[in-house]
Amino acid sequence: MSSLLVVGAGLLGTSAALAARQAGWEVWVEDRDPQALALAVDLCGALAGPPAREPDLCLVCVPPDATGAALADASRRYLTSIVSDVASIKTKPLREAEQWGADPARLVGGHPMAGREIGGARGARADLFEGRPWVVTPGVAERSGVDLVRSLAEACGAVPVEMAAEAHDEAVALVSHAPQVVASLTAARLAGAGDGAVGLAGQGLRDVTRIAASDPGLWTQILAANAPALSAVLAVLHADLGAVLAALERLAPGEAAQRADDVAAARAVVSDALERGRAGRGRIPGKHGAPPQPYAVVSVVVDDRPGELARIFNEAGALGVNIEDLSIEHSPGQAVGLVELAVAPAAAGALRADLRARGWRVHD
Amino acid sequence: MSSLLVVGAGLLGTSAALAARQAGWEVWVEDRDPQALALAVDLCGALAGPPAREPDLCLVCVPPDATGAALADASRRYLTSIVSDVASIKTKPLREAEQWGADPARLVGGHPMAGREIGGARGARADLFEGRPWVVTPGVAERSGVDLVRSLAEACGAVPVEMAAEAHDEAVALVSHAPQVVASLTAARLAGAGDGAVGLAGQGLRDVTRIAASDPGLWTQILAANAPALSAVLAVLHADLGAVLAALERLAPGEAAQRADDVAAARAVVSDALERGRAGRGRIPGKHGAPPQPYAVVSVVVDDRPGELARIFNEAGALGVNIEDLSIEHSPGQAVGLVELAVAPAAAGALRADLRARGWRVHD
Repeated sequence: MSSLLVVGAGLLGTSAALAARQAGWEVWVEDRDPQALALAVDLCGALAGPPAREPDLCLVCVPPDATGAALADASRRYLTSIVSDVASIKTKPLREAEQWGADPARLVGGHPMAGREIGGARGARADLFEGRPWVVTPGVAERSGVDLVRSLAEACGAVPVEMAAEAHDEAVALVSHAPQVVASLTAARLAGAGDGAVGLAGQGLRDVTRIAASDPGLWTQILAANAPALSAVLAVLHADLGAVLAALERLAPGEAAQRADDVAAARAVVSDALERGRAGRGRIPGKHGAPPQPYAVVSVVVDDRPGELARIFNEAGALGVNIEDLSIEHSPGQAVGLVELAVAPAAAGALRADLRARGWRVHD
Repeated sequence: MSSLLVVGAGLLGTSAALAARQAGWEVWVEDRDPQALALAVDLCGALAGPPAREPDLCLVCVPPDATGAALADASRRYLTSIVSDVASIKTKPLREAEQWGADPARLVGGHPMAGREIGGARGARADLFEGRPWVVTPGVAERSGVDLVRSLAEACGAVPVEMAAEAHDEAVALVSHAPQVVASLTAARLAGAGDGAVGLAGQGLRDVTRIAASDPGLWTQILAANAPALSAVLAVLHADLGAVLAALERLAPGEAAQRADDVAAARAVVSDALERGRAGRGRIPGKHGAPPQPYAVVSVVVDDRPGELARIFNEAGALGVNIEDLSIEHSPGQAVGLVELAVAPAAAGALRADLRARGWRVHD
């Protein structure tokens, strides 16, 4: 088994240490904060660094702005170790690492696409990376080093995905960083809104703005570090938004008498944006990169009291039906809730019939 | 009990008919499409219109562009009925209704803030409106008419919220229509992206773009009808996005040697946008307008096979612990999944201890 030094006992570092330990790796952890280090060592059954000998792999898990320097430092301290990182951007920290003296032949970028709301070592979980892509950017590193980083990703249950650092940064600008900006700016409009308006918020707004609750300090580092790729995406978004805005301004009444063909052209701009949005949305794969799952949904009205869900699950279990996903909608103070069970399409009919026969209120 | 004519047997109309029937109202339904009408009548136990006598209330449930004319038509056909609607915008259809001859004293705008992915009568549910706001815009209508619309909203389980039509349109521009535009434009960027980039999509992108899957035809009508209020919100968003974009362009390397204070100023623009986004996000109330629920989360690793969830629910039920919400994360092809149970904070400790004692793998 290989040996690993994790530099930085935050959420990602501690989770990687946990998973690597469970996979049988020898693991050391370092952190400038003695409390964070003690917690991580306790959680992982890892050893506190510095390691007694050169580790096979140093994994730098510090904030993006500090990643380049930490990579260079690890490369200088351990003259044979492969050094890698977990930062959400790749071009800038890897360029900085080389500028500051890291050995390019032993430098492999990495970005596990995982996270959760609870930061720090206390949020760590061995299964944090399970089924997630772990991007590996080989640069000019020796192949054995790239394979070592891949083997760590696999030990963590992740799926290694090799790509160039620039391609990674363009991809995350599109699928992660631009959505973060858009969510934050949309949520920012609520800051000064009246209670009456905010009181009408529905699930759509909650979904669009959920990631606006992210840590502004960390995200400023991420967005700034990916400024070139991110500006390219945002420039197109800005132009698209400008076109929709101009079309809507032409549709507002109070303008000089509107000609029918002007109105039609303006509506076409709005409609086209919505159509392209639906097409783009359709390209997003299902969870964990699987193709979108064609689950059937069985909706059941349940009393809002302990034991009701257990009864449903017992009946599904007795039928051999696996419940793939579930959502619960219920209003505080209401006596009933609506449970939506996602199941294999072939199983839905039997489950509905069985639940109905047993007296449940089932909707299709 | 009052009597109701529902004009338009789509999702909202049929759901309102269902709920009103269950609350004991006398209900007729009309639709130009005989198949939709037959389905709605079957589902609701309502009568097919036209009604034998003037209904107390006519509820127009047709697409936004057709709402004004349908309101005017109902007002002319029934000379004593209150006429109301369910369109997502209020100013334009109500103005059109008056222009086309509706009696303002009997005209009450309405907008139940509810919907689901499955459209048409077959998606109808009596509980569609439960716990949701149902905006009522009184205009200059007589008070008894406003109260009748409120009583229908309550019969449907919704919470009537009175406001002026203009205030409603400004509010939904902010909490619904601008988020729709933003979600669609963000998703549209994916339409031409490479598979490698789209393969890195995570839950953040899924959430931001979920509503981009909405019906472009319906949403073009909604956005165009609310053009004045929506352009006001989008103009600020466009300016904010422009400011973030300009800041990121100043942060991109390759620019002339960057001065430290320029970099700091540009990062401050990005950071400020993220901070304001987090503040705005914090203003969104919990589901159904309740204050955000301080549930505790109990995370359990389960085998991915039928019956496992039932066992957890049985144990929670035996402890008298109500499971308020639940999410399931599992990767196809992986043997285990992670179940997160949301429970009252006071119950979380006992549930964790009990589940652990029974051999479950529980995380805090």
